[in-house]
Amino acid sequence: MKHNFGAGPCILPQEVFEEAARAVVNFNDTGLSILEISHRSKEFEAVMAETERLVRELLAVPHGHSILFLQGGASTQFAMVPMNLLPPGGKAAYLDTGTWASKAIKEAKKIGDVSVVASSSDANYTYIPKGYEVPGDAAYFHYTSNNTIFGTEVFETPQSPVPVVSDMSSDILSRRINVADFGLIYAGAQKNMGPAGVTLVIVKDELLGKTGRTLPAIFDYQPHIAAGSMYNTPPVFSIYVSMLNLRWLKAKGGVDVIEQENIIKARTLYDEIDRNPLFRGTAAPEDRSRMNVTFVTENKEHEAPFLELAKERGLVGLKGHRSVGGFRASIYNALSITGVNALVDAMQEFEEQNK
Amino acid sequence: MKHNFGAGPCILPQEVFEEAARAVVNFNDTGLSILEISHRSKEFEAVMAETERLVRELLAVPHGHSILFLQGGASTQFAMVPMNLLPPGGKAAYLDTGTWASKAIKEAKKIGDVSVVASSSDANYTYIPKGYEVPGDAAYFHYTSNNTIFGTEVFETPQSPVPVVSDMSSDILSRRINVADFGLIYAGAQKNMGPAGVTLVIVKDELLGKTGRTLPAIFDYQPHIAAGSMYNTPPVFSIYVSMLNLRWLKAKGGVDVIEQENIIKARTLYDEIDRNPLFRGTAAPEDRSRMNVTFVTENKEHEAPFLELAKERGLVGLKGHRSVGGFRASIYNALSITGVNALVDAMQEFEEQNK
Repeated sequence: MKHNFGAGPCILPQEVFEEAARAVVNFNDTGLSILEISHRSKEFEAVMAETERLVRELLAVPHGHSILFLQGGASTQFAMVPMNLLPPGGKAAYLDTGTWASKAIKEAKKIGDVSVVASSSDANYTYIPKGYEVPGDAAYFHYTSNNTIFGTEVFETPQSPVPVVSDMSSDILSRRINVADFGLIYAGAQKNMGPAGVTLVIVKDELLGKTGRTLPAIFDYQPHIAAGSMYNTPPVFSIYVSMLNLRWLKAKGGVDVIEQENIIKARTLYDEIDRNPLFRGTAAPEDRSRMNVTFVTENKEHEAPFLELAKERGLVGLKGHRSVGGFRASIYNALSITGVNALVDAMQEFEEQNK
Repeated sequence: MKHNFGAGPCILPQEVFEEAARAVVNFNDTGLSILEISHRSKEFEAVMAETERLVRELLAVPHGHSILFLQGGASTQFAMVPMNLLPPGGKAAYLDTGTWASKAIKEAKKIGDVSVVASSSDANYTYIPKGYEVPGDAAYFHYTSNNTIFGTEVFETPQSPVPVVSDMSSDILSRRINVADFGLIYAGAQKNMGPAGVTLVIVKDELLGKTGRTLPAIFDYQPHIAAGSMYNTPPVFSIYVSMLNLRWLKAKGGVDVIEQENIIKARTLYDEIDRNPLFRGTAAPEDRSRMNVTFVTENKEHEAPFLELAKERGLVGLKGHRSVGGFRASIYNALSITGVNALVDAMQEFEEQNK
């Protein structure tokens, strides 16, 4: 039994893997593989419709916000967001909370003017800046809700006089959000939604079509909305597996139930990090992510042996990102409390060994 | 037993489906699903490297041409090609051979000037224009090598004084091509390479970085080349299944062997269409595609009953595209001669029934 703490692509529920495997050989008793059916078949149209319906239900997406399943990951959204929302001559406001926020800023600057309202780069992004002001003349305000690399998370939607855009790649569907507060939300699927290869976009329709820019159709949200995410051949399998995963989440009781589980999982692990004298968390306690728990050993020489012990216990994917070092335990929706307890046990065992 | 004649996403070899299904539960005995491993793991790096190596070997891609696995399908390439190859103030030459060629033209016009060298729209794209001249001052010349909807195919690489760019989505890997003749080749995977969700691009390195345009990194081929198709999280599963399918093709003997099979399959089916008084091919005989065989019934009232008979015989995906009507038998690499013979048998049975 392995517990996969990898940051992404990452763990999904075992039952999702098993049902997906069956569909690769025989999808819904059609005698055909999910990989060989037409995206225009009624069978796949049903998959697309159910996936959208599940997102709408689980996140309580209001009327007037469209739901899209696109390709290209969050990195493509770094460009598409300003292409679609930032008029020539306008400016966009961004919050800089880490590697991915910085990349979003860098790409937006290629499209137009960008005002960075605040940054925590002064302290290697260990905290979320507060007390900044979003300029009222910006076309939109962009922030990254969870910083996978640095282990920080924004739990309260920032106050903004302009539409809020959020990259929620690594915490979407892990907790309740009020979608009506957002102009646009995007998320690479490969954390809590599904496998790599599909990107969720939720966009308030009335914000679109106002920049006067001529866009290639494929980079314009509107043709995708008009075609129900079938403007071009969608990533069939990634959408199908996302549907299975959303069904699993719904059966569990939905976002509110998983949020409570995620709170308990995160608390269990942070409590041990704070208690165990051999370890130390790297993120500011008030901004600690519930998805990616970053920590180091107090003694640098303990790093390799702890990683070794963890591996022996079947705990994989714990090595920290090079920007932070140490360890990163990604405890996404599908990583059970059993997995977290196994990690805590390993930390306590390691403490015993090093007394 | 079903024979899947669907135009795409489409049939792949049964053994590919079976191995892919096993990997969705347990990839390479890692105890993890292919869907949950990191794209930065050594296991996936090996998959990416082998996939690239197989494309290079099977298509004899020369040194100086890079191989990329991107997202977004051919529709994304309709924009990326001019963004990367067409300098501001320059013009690009396009051949208009059908729906997809027209879309490529429409998108390129949003980026710069386009000169359409010839079109077969006058005859509902039933033939490939010939005798046109490609202007020497164009940045590149673009054509679609196989027209999935209209059932026509360009077998000889057009003469061009400027770099040739080809959308080979529906015939790549079905026959020998001389990659050195091309500046850029692109192909949505979902015909002969793999499942939907990944796009193959083969590009001559020396053509890049010359337009002076500032591009979002995700739409610029160069960062993808520098990162070995890992600039952002790649579509892991679609690449993995492509690798399995390319292994299958190599084990069969490669492109030359499959080309001979494809010639025989196409000839078998076209011979029956020409012989059987109830049916008629829609494409000009000299331009008939080996991948998508388009045909109609002489008597319009025979259409529905023949489709019904075919369905009873397990022959699926035969309904023609609305632009042509009638039938379209897509006979990609993985559709065996047994499948073609079953279709021919059904056509002969239908002839008997309607004597």
